[in-house]
Amino acid sequence: MTMEYIPGLAGVPATESSISYIDGQAGILSYRGYSIAELAQYSSFEETSLLLLTGELPSEAELDRFKCKLGENRRVKYNVRALMKCLPASTHPMHMLQTVVASLASFYPSTAYMAGDENDATYIREVSENILAHMGTLVAMWEHLRYGYDPIAPRKDLSYAGNMLYMLSGKEPEPVWERLLDACLILHAEHTINASTFTALVTGSTLANPCSVVSSAIGSLSGPLHGAANEKVIAMLEDIGDASNARAYIEKRLANKQVIWGMGHREYKTKDPRAAILQQLIQEHLIDKGGKLSKLFETALVVEDVCKELLAHKGVYPNVDFYSGILYREMGFDPASYTPIFAISRSAGWLAHWHEQLKKNKIYRPTQVYQGECDRQYVPMQDR
Amino acid sequence: MTMEYIPGLAGVPATESSISYIDGQAGILSYRGYSIAELAQYSSFEETSLLLLTGELPSEAELDRFKCKLGENRRVKYNVRALMKCLPASTHPMHMLQTVVASLASFYPSTAYMAGDENDATYIREVSENILAHMGTLVAMWEHLRYGYDPIAPRKDLSYAGNMLYMLSGKEPEPVWERLLDACLILHAEHTINASTFTALVTGSTLANPCSVVSSAIGSLSGPLHGAANEKVIAMLEDIGDASNARAYIEKRLANKQVIWGMGHREYKTKDPRAAILQQLIQEHLIDKGGKLSKLFETALVVEDVCKELLAHKGVYPNVDFYSGILYREMGFDPASYTPIFAISRSAGWLAHWHEQLKKNKIYRPTQVYQGECDRQYVPMQDR
Repeated sequence: MTMEYIPGLAGVPATESSISYIDGQAGILSYRGYSIAELAQYSSFEETSLLLLTGELPSEAELDRFKCKLGENRRVKYNVRALMKCLPASTHPMHMLQTVVASLASFYPSTAYMAGDENDATYIREVSENILAHMGTLVAMWEHLRYGYDPIAPRKDLSYAGNMLYMLSGKEPEPVWERLLDACLILHAEHTINASTFTALVTGSTLANPCSVVSSAIGSLSGPLHGAANEKVIAMLEDIGDASNARAYIEKRLANKQVIWGMGHREYKTKDPRAAILQQLIQEHLIDKGGKLSKLFETALVVEDVCKELLAHKGVYPNVDFYSGILYREMGFDPASYTPIFAISRSAGWLAHWHEQLKKNKIYRPTQVYQGECDRQYVPMQDR
Repeated sequence: MTMEYIPGLAGVPATESSISYIDGQAGILSYRGYSIAELAQYSSFEETSLLLLTGELPSEAELDRFKCKLGENRRVKYNVRALMKCLPASTHPMHMLQTVVASLASFYPSTAYMAGDENDATYIREVSENILAHMGTLVAMWEHLRYGYDPIAPRKDLSYAGNMLYMLSGKEPEPVWERLLDACLILHAEHTINASTFTALVTGSTLANPCSVVSSAIGSLSGPLHGAANEKVIAMLEDIGDASNARAYIEKRLANKQVIWGMGHREYKTKDPRAAILQQLIQEHLIDKGGKLSKLFETALVVEDVCKELLAHKGVYPNVDFYSGILYREMGFDPASYTPIFAISRSAGWLAHWHEQLKKNKIYRPTQVYQGECDRQYVPMQDR
């Protein structure tokens, strides 16, 4: 039987999974059966990660233990730091992350080779804690190293989000930003089988080391078709400048059939549920409390209104990247770090898929439709 | 319409391709329509790489230019070397390679972002030359760096294979080993859509940087189910020890239904054509000429005879890993470097698939069969 070739394998089932579920018509995303609206409201990134990894909400003792391990694993070995210092200052943080995560297996030999222990629960748990903890630290370190400064040492006593903000500014994290970063991390942690998660599955199916698996997935996420949208939202907002320019700018782009960054999502026919949640949190924690916001934030709110008026009737709404980009900017992250923050969060999902893949592993070996030449005869150089 | 889920996407067409073709029944592998038997006999790794990348055998001027570029790009920046020195001495060369190749985009900013120039022929050619040239140099450097020694500087005047042998030993390469390494590189350069090539396709489909693409593919190849077989062949031969133990050892493993490493290949129902070619070259260049071979080589030849007797009637023959492992050992490479040599060679195929993917790119976004929980309600911590 010859199967039909479907470009991009769109709609082709590539795995059986119990991790997350999207209902694009209803605008629902759930992790392990829990809607992300509830998780963003009541959970933390730490608890959500554990939920993704194990399938269940943890007990208090399990969550405490996990937080403690994440805290301990924030320490970075000095040769990892030295390795980062060898990278050119212009290195994009996604390339930094792919490079350094690939090297982690070597710095932690216990993660380096599984030798058939792929179902060893302790091993899988420890290596996941280590990778997840490092992701946030590495991105925050690079914000300083790339300018030639020593990084700020991580703190064990803070939450995942709180520590990232602390390592960025060296100041005690403000609760409002800690809360919003935590929500962003929860909302980006998993999203079924996109290109980066699929890369993790394919790489993991060879029983490659989990550091290799996550590094490969980072490589995939680094592509502009996949992970770079929230960076582009900010570039667009800066291009607009003052809020008063927003309407004319958007109308012109629409007339020229140009992309409005941060609008629409291929999976959702209605509002991206993650965007709706962030929008509500922004309202609740920032606007209602009269928080001081940047000019760009005001521009973003006008863009949101204009797009609602011009696009919502077509089923096009702001997506999660629209709001997360603006928030990361307010928190003080460099635009180049927005996709790495996405990667930090998504590493929880990648690791969950890696676990799941190992449980009933089969190496990926699809086929091709051959369209090339056949039976050519080698021609010696003098006769070409 | 719901499609059937096929584990590992076995037999599912995932791309249209004109690069290589396997006829598993007839035992044929061709690159761009040319049988690998002819290429191994008449071509070089340089010419074969160019054939894979462009689709055509090059003119003399094109080949000279390509060789010259590969020679120039063998130089490694001192900060790349410094980065390698930060890795622990115990780092597996595959992890070194995944790490360093991921960093190359940062050291060569012209490769770093394509910004829609994905069809720019000059860019694609130059970045491919740079990555391909670095692969061999990096692996040869690590053979010294891992023991704390400075690497041997590459030479522009040697062939790809010759330079690798020179960088390994510091001596003028012996023609027989240069010829055999060149043949191994030709024979491993491409093999349709396996897990590592598929990883390159998926990563490339996000328009990720080619260094990220090749690094991801290296991660995939590093898994023991994919790339580590020739290393295991040598471990098995060392386990056998003297040639006189070979028959009893093989018979015992067969009786216990254990794997005989280096035997059989899922794609070939008959002899692996690459193995047949290497076997013939070994006969011609080593055995017929009375070359001095190691004890282990003699053991391998007996294992080959015993397996022929016991397994050939089942359609199980030695595969390419059986012979390449033995040859790499004779050349003086560390067993851990066998899969990296495979990666060097295969990077030609990965880059060819990356080119092809860009020409009619569609991001990979398969789907999943959801088997998890639905509609669960968040339970506050105190109620768990």
